[in-house]
Amino acid sequence: MKTLQDYIDKLNSLNFKEMYENDFFLTWEKSDAELEAVWTVADALRFMRENNISTKVFESGLGISLFRDNSTRTRFSFASACNLLGLEVQDLDEGKSQVAHGETVRETANMVSFMADVIGIRDDMYIGKGNAYMHEFMEAVTQGNKDGILEQRPTLVNLQCDIDHPTQSMADALHIIHEMGGLENLKGKKLAMTWAYSPSYGKPLSVPQGIIGLMTRMGMEVVLAHPEGYEVMPEVVEVAKKNAEKSGGSFRISNDMADAFKDADVVYPKSWAPFAAMEKRTNLYAEGDSDGIKALEKELLSQNAQHKDWCCTEELMKTTKDGKALYMHCLPADINDVSCVDGEVEATVFDRYRDPLYKEASYKPYVIASMIFLSKFKNPQEILKKLEVKKAPRIFE
Amino acid sequence: MKTLQDYIDKLNSLNFKEMYENDFFLTWEKSDAELEAVWTVADALRFMRENNISTKVFESGLGISLFRDNSTRTRFSFASACNLLGLEVQDLDEGKSQVAHGETVRETANMVSFMADVIGIRDDMYIGKGNAYMHEFMEAVTQGNKDGILEQRPTLVNLQCDIDHPTQSMADALHIIHEMGGLENLKGKKLAMTWAYSPSYGKPLSVPQGIIGLMTRMGMEVVLAHPEGYEVMPEVVEVAKKNAEKSGGSFRISNDMADAFKDADVVYPKSWAPFAAMEKRTNLYAEGDSDGIKALEKELLSQNAQHKDWCCTEELMKTTKDGKALYMHCLPADINDVSCVDGEVEATVFDRYRDPLYKEASYKPYVIASMIFLSKFKNPQEILKKLEVKKAPRIFE
Amino acid sequence: MKTLQDYIDKLNSLNFKEMYENDFFLTWEKSDAELEAVWTVADALRFMRENNISTKVFESGLGISLFRDNSTRTRFSFASACNLLGLEVQDLDEGKSQVAHGETVRETANMVSFMADVIGIRDDMYIGKGNAYMHEFMEAVTQGNKDGILEQRPTLVNLQCDIDHPTQSMADALHIIHEMGGLENLKGKKLAMTWAYSPSYGKPLSVPQGIIGLMTRMGMEVVLAHPEGYEVMPEVVEVAKKNAEKSGGSFRISNDMADAFKDADVVYPKSWAPFAAMEKRTNLYAEGDSDGIKALEKELLSQNAQHKDWCCTEELMKTTKDGKALYMHCLPADINDVSCVDGEVEATVFDRYRDPLYKEASYKPYVIASMIFLSKFKNPQEILKKLEVKKAPRIFE
Repeated sequence: MKTLQDYIDKLNSLNFKEMYENDFFLTWEKSDAELEAVWTVADALRFMRENNISTKVFESGLGISLFRDNSTRTRFSFASACNLLGLEVQDLDEGKSQVAHGETVRETANMVSFMADVIGIRDDMYIGKGNAYMHEFMEAVTQGNKDGILEQRPTLVNLQCDIDHPTQSMADALHIIHEMGGLENLKGKKLAMTWAYSPSYGKPLSVPQGIIGLMTRMGMEVVLAHPEGYEVMPEVVEVAKKNAEKSGGSFRISNDMADAFKDADVVYPKSWAPFAAMEKRTNLYAEGDSDGIKALEKELLSQNAQHKDWCCTEELMKTTKDGKALYMHCLPADINDVSCVDGEVEATVFDRYRDPLYKEASYKPYVIASMIFLSKFKNPQEILKKLEVKKAPRIFE
Repeated sequence: MKTLQDYIDKLNSLNFKEMYENDFFLTWEKSDAELEAVWTVADALRFMRENNISTKVFESGLGISLFRDNSTRTRFSFASACNLLGLEVQDLDEGKSQVAHGETVRETANMVSFMADVIGIRDDMYIGKGNAYMHEFMEAVTQGNKDGILEQRPTLVNLQCDIDHPTQSMADALHIIHEMGGLENLKGKKLAMTWAYSPSYGKPLSVPQGIIGLMTRMGMEVVLAHPEGYEVMPEVVEVAKKNAEKSGGSFRISNDMADAFKDADVVYPKSWAPFAAMEKRTNLYAEGDSDGIKALEKELLSQNAQHKDWCCTEELMKTTKDGKALYMHCLPADINDVSCVDGEVEATVFDRYRDPLYKEASYKPYVIASMIFLSKFKNPQEILKKLEVKKAPRIFE
Repeated sequence: MKTLQDYIDKLNSLNFKEMYENDFFLTWEKSDAELEAVWTVADALRFMRENNISTKVFESGLGISLFRDNSTRTRFSFASACNLLGLEVQDLDEGKSQVAHGETVRETANMVSFMADVIGIRDDMYIGKGNAYMHEFMEAVTQGNKDGILEQRPTLVNLQCDIDHPTQSMADALHIIHEMGGLENLKGKKLAMTWAYSPSYGKPLSVPQGIIGLMTRMGMEVVLAHPEGYEVMPEVVEVAKKNAEKSGGSFRISNDMADAFKDADVVYPKSWAPFAAMEKRTNLYAEGDSDGIKALEKELLSQNAQHKDWCCTEELMKTTKDGKALYMHCLPADINDVSCVDGEVEATVFDRYRDPLYKEASYKPYVIASMIFLSKFKNPQEILKKLEVKKAPRIFE
């Protein structure tokens, strides 16, 4: 069985200095070593929790969460991560707060951060806005810390923006790493990130973008498949291409789901809205054109309806590597005859993969905690060692 | 004055092995020894808090609360219990969460439980649904824990279902035990669980059912009184009958409030909706028949109005044992000329019993904490002893 | 650099015995020594946090917050203060709770306080109601504690009522004290608390009232300026007059903003609603006269509109002491051409003072924590010393 020292040794072999007192916006802004550090600390924290060793490193402090979109698993993952480290979550609910009353981002950012060690933001609804908002927020608290207003500079964890969903893609990657028995085993494996039909409309692009932006770095053969008209952000496509070149893997776009599934080791069929349409919607919202928004919604739903054949069927699964590709999804999935008539996946496929799907999700709290941990401690290895020596039990014994 | 050792000695005399890593659904699913263990640990925890001894047994961990009905006291009791043991409460608010968006119970249960040690659920609105939902939820996390998705299996505390309200009835019982100077003194005492008029409609059945299902076990003479047509669940009536036989007490149903109050040692006058009507309402909701629901509500209100004479008056109180029966209520009560014109109780009666009523409520946080404690520790006596030896103060000194 | 002992020595020179197990309603109900104790402990707690010394004095316990008006900074300040001391915040949201269902204040107060060490209430909307509600609430828990229902008596922190906003004014004062290099330097300084135009309507009176009720105690030359018809509560004007006499400062009312700004050392331009109008609104609400409320709102907005010239302009700022008066605001401010066309302050003025404004706000969490600390410990000096000796790090090291 592994020991904590194994994780510490791994960390000693990696250079992640830059993560200290830094934020986590996009995976492709981080080095390979930094990503590996995130996975290593995530595994170490999980190892410690499984062995009833407390990882409470904060005696007090707040983790501020700001969700501008519904969320169950990300909300609870963030709360779990904060709790695991000793931070208390405070939701900045714009309903309750005066943010709704025209308070500036700069001001709010500082007003909620006097005792905040972490800020988790989910803002994925509007193209060009979410990630920008996070940067605006963090520039404000950085300034506030410089000016002696905030004793500490809170760290950002991007809980999903318009461009990337790093806590999702990093948890997904850690799942694949464990399923394949190690990071080194991903090289050459084929991953199909494909669009799938959903009766609901306007699902964010950040998941497919996050997946192609990350998985292309591990030397995988990544195929992004979608019907014509369902393109993702061109910038992210560029990122994926560059990553693939650098990592010795490959990246291509296909308009054929079967082509993507053929001999795939990993399949990730999921619905999303066309980038162009989301951009259009963003502008309509800005103009407050509600009729335009309704019209766009109607148009998109009928466009979706033309692609009901984009479904993860048993038949398609048979065409994957040994018919046993690892099926992945960020959840919740639209399951045929369960959550809808026609959806992203057939019920029998989903049922067969329920366990791995839940495991996939179970990495997210640890990935978030790891991102916080790495940004808060200059020498995480030393801290992990000290926690092991201290050996305070999580549950009293 | 009592010492902690007294509580530990009592626990040593009881067999409650089965409670370890188990849930609390219904009181009649637990043995007498198990119920006594709950009261003993509740008293022990209260004793320790009163003596500024910290009972924080969790360094980290979440207590998930899921309320499908409004609540003040139960919500705060659960929060207090979790906090007392070191767990942080996270509400699973279906408004905020994606549960509302068709996510399955199984999935949600696992997604919120990655770091959950306790789940508290209140789901009392629909006959045949609440308790079933709790079981579905717990089967999901049990499976998740077996499959290695959840490192720990969270414990369920039933915060009120369609059948029972165990944290209420157990707190009520602990109140009676203290008022009567010991569990052994309940034998032969008469308890009147009676319906009372309320201008509001559709109050849950779980309180009267919980009371007759529990109090019949201590050898009490339990009378359930209500107007014709206000029957409770037949299954629970059966439970009460069997309990009474076994405990050497008695149980009978009367349609006469005065008969129930006559010489009673304890009276519990409270409104509830007829079982049959609640069942009907459940079906109407299932069919989405809002007109039917409105019609039913109207019908029930006029039915209630025929029984305004079912009120806990001074006159009735005079007929109880020495005119001094212990008046009980789960609160809030409908008080004549205070919260309504005609209600469940006369203001002077309520005022005279305010102190005992608040005391009654004050046991709930400790009962909940006790249920959690007993399910989390294989040897609670040892843990209590260690906490006493450690003697960490709750408030720094 | 200061040491913790300096703060302890200062406390040793002050008599604040009465604060132990007491509440904080209004600053003018406290002695000068008690106010100085609040500022001293606030600075001490900040000093300790800056030096990574944990001030967690509660192993468990709840801080109950009850907000009857929107809030960001006060909500987060209260949460931060509770967290800093080890208390977990539980919101008593009247939406979620049964308070909305006619539960009496007395009952609610006890039902939420079984494990509450602190109660923070914001109730500033209705004249004659907010402060009264707080007293009613605290009488209930005091009784509950006497009767053995509550093991501890929670402390009230007034988070803003209809009369005073003590956590704001005390934080404001601490800001001035630090800006001026000591409490003794406030004597003779001119402070202008002036009305300013806002397009929004019905802003609470508690800030201007809190400021004139507090700043007149430090020997300052306080001028309250507003257009005719914008009078504040006469009782508070009386308080301010008496304070000024006693402290050797002065207090006067002016209807001329320029007169107030002339040579001022500190300016606090902020909008508020006329006292008489707020009283009228309270009655209209009581009568449920929504048409009357709409009419009043319209009337007040047009009345405001006649005073758009009441704005904190660069020109006015030039007339202050050396053109460098300390500009203050409780935030959020209505900034010309930023949050509105015409508002309370010109953008260039606001921008120049952003840092001091944020610093001003940053004292609030510490002021609240200090109020809690002083009410919970008989000998705060000893507790501070013990915490320093214990030297538990806030962030693990």
